Amino acid sequence: MQVINIGILGLGTVGSGVVRILRDHQNKISSITGRKLVIKTVVVHDLAKKRNVDLTGINVTDKIDDLINDKDIQIVVEVMGTVTTAKEYIERLLNAGKHIITANKDLIATYGSELAELAGKNDCDLFYEASVAGGIPILRTIVNSFAADRIVEVKGIVNGTTNYIMTQMSQNHVDYQKALKSAQELGFAEPDPTNDVEGIDAAYKMIILTQFAFGMNVTLDDIEVEGISRVDLEDIKQAKKLGYNIKLVGIAKLINDRIKVSVGPVLIPLDQPLAAVQNENNAVLVTGAAVGETMFYGPGAGELPTANSVLSDIIAVTKNIVLGTTGSRFNDFSREGKQALPDEVVYPYYISLRVKDQPGQMLKITEVMTSVKASFHLILQTEIDDNYARVVMTTHEMSEAQLKEIISAIAELNDIDVIASYKVLPD
Amino acid sequence: MQVINIGILGLGTVGSGVVRILRDHQNKISSITGRKLVIKTVVVHDLAKKRNVDLTGINVTDKIDDLINDKDIQIVVEVMGTVTTAKEYIERLLNAGKHIITANKDLIATYGSELAELAGKNDCDLFYEASVAGGIPILRTIVNSFAADRIVEVKGIVNGTTNYIMTQMSQNHVDYQKALKSAQELGFAEPDPTNDVEGIDAAYKMIILTQFAFGMNVTLDDIEVEGISRVDLEDIKQAKKLGYNIKLVGIAKLINDRIKVSVGPVLIPLDQPLAAVQNENNAVLVTGAAVGETMFYGPGAGELPTANSVLSDIIAVTKNIVLGTTGSRFNDFSREGKQALPDEVVYPYYISLRVKDQPGQMLKITEVMTSVKASFHLILQTEIDDNYARVVMTTHEMSEAQLKEIISAIAELNDIDVIASYKVLPD
Repeated sequence: MQVINIGILGLGTVGSGVVRILRDHQNKISSITGRKLVIKTVVVHDLAKKRNVDLTGINVTDKIDDLINDKDIQIVVEVMGTVTTAKEYIERLLNAGKHIITANKDLIATYGSELAELAGKNDCDLFYEASVAGGIPILRTIVNSFAADRIVEVKGIVNGTTNYIMTQMSQNHVDYQKALKSAQELGFAEPDPTNDVEGIDAAYKMIILTQFAFGMNVTLDDIEVEGISRVDLEDIKQAKKLGYNIKLVGIAKLINDRIKVSVGPVLIPLDQPLAAVQNENNAVLVTGAAVGETMFYGPGAGELPTANSVLSDIIAVTKNIVLGTTGSRFNDFSREGKQALPDEVVYPYYISLRVKDQPGQMLKITEVMTSVKASFHLILQTEIDDNYARVVMTTHEMSEAQLKEIISAIAELNDIDVIASYKVLPD
Repeated sequence: MQVINIGILGLGTVGSGVVRILRDHQNKISSITGRKLVIKTVVVHDLAKKRNVDLTGINVTDKIDDLINDKDIQIVVEVMGTVTTAKEYIERLLNAGKHIITANKDLIATYGSELAELAGKNDCDLFYEASVAGGIPILRTIVNSFAADRIVEVKGIVNGTTNYIMTQMSQNHVDYQKALKSAQELGFAEPDPTNDVEGIDAAYKMIILTQFAFGMNVTLDDIEVEGISRVDLEDIKQAKKLGYNIKLVGIAKLINDRIKVSVGPVLIPLDQPLAAVQNENNAVLVTGAAVGETMFYGPGAGELPTANSVLSDIIAVTKNIVLGTTGSRFNDFSREGKQALPDEVVYPYYISLRVKDQPGQMLKITEVMTSVKASFHLILQTEIDDNYARVVMTTHEMSEAQLKEIISAIAELNDIDVIASYKVLPD
């Protein structure tokens, strides 16, 4: 059987998983592709570091040129991370005619178009299924199965760390700091969790999903991003009383053919499938004009799930090599993208207030709402202590501009503070 | 732009949906495939029947030869239903070099291998994404994204009619007959619902899923099938008290490398994603050795969802025609399949009994359980009336042989009747 040689750039969690799966499932992969896939060379940063994966027969080096100059290597898997260095390496590898598979979402979200163009010029494949929602094959599914449909919205729980934290807060009634600590102890959160908890990681994934679902390029600056670090346990409890779970959700939505992408805490009705996604799991809900709502659920990270997505890319490249059909874009859907206008983006909102307990307060709040032509759906008042009450409300649909007006008008009132304001997904 | 002509065999719900989507999304499809897809001819049974879809420019005929003999037509979509006639037509079309797309699960479950072989001989594609779980792209996902993994179990809610009925019973506390009637009024159930409610339709889909997930061919005779027509509302209520939803679930599971496929009412823990699949929706949960649990959720039927799956097949064929790569099997994973041995298949069970209210009854039940070396997990007794009580219990894992022994031993007792026994999915 003909051999296809593979190089791997980086031997962390995912790289080790790729080595493991490829060895364990060698026969099945060969029976499907008609080729024997062999890992020839692995490039690591630190040659001395002990690895907990069997590297027998694999050439381990710290020189990228050992991949670039090896004519026998046809496919390179980049799982080293970083943006600048990875980009430089991938460019050199593409120019040397290597097909590239990467799990590097920061890189693809930032330089995806540029790298895809370079890959095309070199007749190379560039696949990155593992960059979004680890073990869930969402990118290839959008390409293959929504090609004839018109996707109108993509909503995703695409960050396992924040979903773990929110689940712990909701189920065990622990506050944010405690939940974060437990996530760190279990390895679900980094020592510096900023990128995850402030929504940056989710935003990168939404950039890639937006490109696949709508054919539109957006950047981090186009996205309204809010993290979970200021989510109050009390709001999670109040939301549940009203029939919602609060989760960090990325939303990319087509409004009058313009796009709006946001990442932030959102109230999800408890009976919706997204509300049931627990702990470190991910889910992406795709709404197509024809197909309606479909949801794809699974592990968002982890050695073997992510490595499995890398392997599905390796098999796709291998089939293309066999058929002589490499060099097509992973996603060939592309159209001009315009940002939605602020007035077009309307949601019901959840607003949580800390209110000094004295007569006339509700009248003041009502006056503010009336002045911006917004209306309540529901108000719930609970005592905090002798002096303060918490008032939470859900509103009817309103624009972000209206929301901002409400918040700044309330800020001017004495004795009423806005604690939080989150989007509410419709029933 | 080059044109690819398409023929359609049958113009019911799905056929009309294909005509509609292809017209509405013409531009997007062309931009992806580089071809203009045109429906040239539609073959119908009754030329006089009024159609509620615009057929301008389409040749409508009642002669299959108008497809077979038309050299311009490259792709034929079979959505006429039936097994024998559809098989004969598809064979003639394949022999005439037409690529086939079908939504006909009965046909594929029964003659899939034979037709796939004939397609290969003629260098033709034969795709049938729409045959399982309508709008959910589950077959192509298994092929593309689980190729490197080893799937160990596929569980599915793959029949919308029965899931609608079970949801109505569970949420609105109506009995089976009432729920069936409401399903029929809404068009979710046929006037003769046998095929759906007795689990036959789900079993056909499990045959196809088993072939894709495990590469193994099973027939209807290999599958243990039980429908929902005898599910008692009371058991749904009792199960919920214990923390479960009862749903009709198809399970294909690898046990010691042998396969076991079953369809029947099953208790699903309420916090599992499958338990949250409501009404006519479908979901397929795939467990991979590497990737763990992933779930694919969406509409199981309906004009546009199903037509969208047909369209994704049409686009796949078109890409293959452009690249010159037609003639590969939809699923090229194949291995010898053996049926699991009865003793290997173990589950916890839910057993529901009608017991005459008199001293010593629980002792008799306990004696039966002890005699077959089975043990309880939990017992719940509720009064039915002055004379009878309902005893429901969940057991620890036991084999089907043990279950049968219990049921026949209880049948021999006076004053105790077995009302139901269902598998319980583990937490």
